[in-house]
Amino acid sequence: MSPRLRHLTTLEHLPRASIERLLDRAIALRDACAHGTRKLDTLAGRTVLNLFFEPSTRTRTSFELAARRLGADVINFDIGFSSTAKGEALYDTLHTLEAMHLDAIVVRHKVSGTPEELVRHAMSGVSVVNAGDGNRAHPTQGLLDALTIRQHRPDFENLVVTICGDIRHSRVARSDVHALSAMGVGEIRFCGPAALLPEASEFPQCRYTEDFDSAIEGADVAIMLRLQKERMAATDLPDEGAYFRHYGLDARRLARAAKGCLVMHPGPLNRGIEIANEVADGAQSRILEQVANGVFVRMAVLAELLAR
Amino acid sequence: MSPRLRHLTTLEHLPRASIERLLDRAIALRDACAHGTRKLDTLAGRTVLNLFFEPSTRTRTSFELAARRLGADVINFDIGFSSTAKGEALYDTLHTLEAMHLDAIVVRHKVSGTPEELVRHAMSGVSVVNAGDGNRAHPTQGLLDALTIRQHRPDFENLVVTICGDIRHSRVARSDVHALSAMGVGEIRFCGPAALLPEASEFPQCRYTEDFDSAIEGADVAIMLRLQKERMAATDLPDEGAYFRHYGLDARRLARAAKGCLVMHPGPLNRGIEIANEVADGAQSRILEQVANGVFVRMAVLAELLAR
Amino acid sequence: MSPRLRHLTTLEHLPRASIERLLDRAIALRDACAHGTRKLDTLAGRTVLNLFFEPSTRTRTSFELAARRLGADVINFDIGFSSTAKGEALYDTLHTLEAMHLDAIVVRHKVSGTPEELVRHAMSGVSVVNAGDGNRAHPTQGLLDALTIRQHRPDFENLVVTICGDIRHSRVARSDVHALSAMGVGEIRFCGPAALLPEASEFPQCRYTEDFDSAIEGADVAIMLRLQKERMAATDLPDEGAYFRHYGLDARRLARAAKGCLVMHPGPLNRGIEIANEVADGAQSRILEQVANGVFVRMAVLAELLAR
Repeated sequence: MSPRLRHLTTLEHLPRASIERLLDRAIALRDACAHGTRKLDTLAGRTVLNLFFEPSTRTRTSFELAARRLGADVINFDIGFSSTAKGEALYDTLHTLEAMHLDAIVVRHKVSGTPEELVRHAMSGVSVVNAGDGNRAHPTQGLLDALTIRQHRPDFENLVVTICGDIRHSRVARSDVHALSAMGVGEIRFCGPAALLPEASEFPQCRYTEDFDSAIEGADVAIMLRLQKERMAATDLPDEGAYFRHYGLDARRLARAAKGCLVMHPGPLNRGIEIANEVADGAQSRILEQVANGVFVRMAVLAELLAR
Repeated sequence: MSPRLRHLTTLEHLPRASIERLLDRAIALRDACAHGTRKLDTLAGRTVLNLFFEPSTRTRTSFELAARRLGADVINFDIGFSSTAKGEALYDTLHTLEAMHLDAIVVRHKVSGTPEELVRHAMSGVSVVNAGDGNRAHPTQGLLDALTIRQHRPDFENLVVTICGDIRHSRVARSDVHALSAMGVGEIRFCGPAALLPEASEFPQCRYTEDFDSAIEGADVAIMLRLQKERMAATDLPDEGAYFRHYGLDARRLARAAKGCLVMHPGPLNRGIEIANEVADGAQSRILEQVANGVFVRMAVLAELLAR
Repeated sequence: MSPRLRHLTTLEHLPRASIERLLDRAIALRDACAHGTRKLDTLAGRTVLNLFFEPSTRTRTSFELAARRLGADVINFDIGFSSTAKGEALYDTLHTLEAMHLDAIVVRHKVSGTPEELVRHAMSGVSVVNAGDGNRAHPTQGLLDALTIRQHRPDFENLVVTICGDIRHSRVARSDVHALSAMGVGEIRFCGPAALLPEASEFPQCRYTEDFDSAIEGADVAIMLRLQKERMAATDLPDEGAYFRHYGLDARRLARAAKGCLVMHPGPLNRGIEIANEVADGAQSRILEQVANGVFVRMAVLAELLAR
């Protein structure tokens, strides 16, 4: 049995057994709390702190709900208001929070590697959970995507997964690849404008293409990424309409995928840019299941890290 | 018996029996929690989300206290920080929150009709509570004003109620008229500069005047509205001093009202503009009773909407 | 026995017995909650409101943790969002909060005397706790500093305490002097650039100097204050390097102090400006003990003020 985790900063190198254990635990917690309508006392008396240096109400709320449904207290450390703005070193902020006897710090930061920096400097028993760092990792997103796929298609080795959009700058894509590779997925295809694809050497196991029609062909899962509008300039595309024509998922393109292809998106959606309404709201969309699973996966992670 | 409410977006067309039931429940909850010094477990394990697109610490705090005193968890979804700022559609925000299994969404938005839009798109069992939309409705304010009046003057059919100020742009005034009309109030008088009065056709049951001295004559209740200073330009009045001379409630004017006339204001006060200190702090002021009743009324609404 | 406190706005004129009782209570609560890993129900059902007009995530979080570990609910009244911004009088904000039946208001404000103003206007049983007002007082900081010193050196009458930095504008320094004087400390030395020292008449019991080498000589405690960078202009010092050379605590200077001299700082640290890394992170640093004691002292204050 793989050892209990103390921190979760990335899914890279995490063995399949550890990932499966977290997904199993997510399902067990979902059932125990009756889909979020009942509170547990697994983490009663423990305190989780949200330390968000980048705005993300969606992810912060998901973590806050997860912690509260386990009976923990939650503190939102509003960083726009904080002494880090006054120039305090990150590790001084960390040590201050540790001295206050917090149990877990959920951190989001635009600088890649910040969660590892916190782990490196942590002195006490505090656990660090990465809620997204730079372009590098967003491990709970990788887990919730793996869980969503597993609920429909547990035969990972047979699956073709297409990830489309700005993969180069996407921590979601990276954590998805880590999770899916560990789960033994059959094939991962990357698709997007050349300027938004990662270096070929970063993911030798993935197939790269700029042609969405071929990338979606026979896919069992399509993960559409949000286009940051300021990235458009880096591409050859003149505007959002052109982006949608080349890389947007509409019903016509979805028909090229395998029957029952799961449509996924980490949100928030740019409707009409990377995804058409007919697909986002269609029968194959798993987008809201992803959101629901996000809470259960975060419960599982907090329960695993903070178990005594 | 009128059916249990699932949402509260407006008091318009709400029958007197439904309003009375909410007011009775507010009083019962006030007594059960010993005026807010004891917590109940009516909503233990439920989660209420505050979704405020307009700032209002006062109303948000009142809802937060109401939810907590019923034992619910509260999440503040700080919208300045949210993906709606990034251009997410409102119904996508709603569906995301529903997927996280929230029980109620308390919403304030500057666009009239936003709460109804949420109700129209709601897919799950979530309840929507309007905490103020545009110029249209602020139903818990209407309820707390009705409760405050009822505690002193339950004989609504005998009452003359004067509402003074910027009625045209006031959701408070509209919800007050809805509540008071349902309760069978004798007479409602509107008073303010012509530019700040609503169309005559909107409230045919009310008497309109620009002359405060006649409007206050014999009134049993005076509801003074906050003047948004940027509205002054629309009137013929040169400055705040002139506004106060024409539409401010001072002791001299209050003496023209009926004996024991109740003085009310939704807050925050512009002292010296729409109300004189001597009146705001005088024996007939019910302003702080309104604040206290606000918490109890919101408890009643949440308990009604979320009862299983 | 000194009477129970209802408010805590300053330590000035607080007798030693009252301070000792709070420190004893802090230690008792620390032990009762097992250093913050277990929640108590001392204040179950009570509500504490954080009313911060100045940003301070650190102090706000410490108060929030203290209140929650005693079982209280906490409301953060985000003042950037509040009607005070709309021009509501401070006492109207207070009365509104009182009408909502809050038990305690923790207030920080840049205007000296604001907590006393709240106490003067309080009508109900609400307790006011000063979390820092202007340059005047920060009583829980004074208490936590006294507790930190007492844990190592309970023989206050023998101690030489050196406070170094911008004392003139420091509420921390003032509350430290109040606490230490009440505890009967042997000698207090003030050190800093002339422009940042208070009037000589304000603290006749203290020794003033601009020479840090002599101020630190034989000191048992060194309290280093944060330099607000905008204060540099008031001094003769050209830059931060010059400040550090004159008033920074490094190993060389610490060697002039008494053996085992306690190194303290209220945080956040300006490393390399008022304190060297080797000292901040050295064996004599009590800085993180101060942070930990801050939570326990605030628990003691809230428990004392809100006890029934």
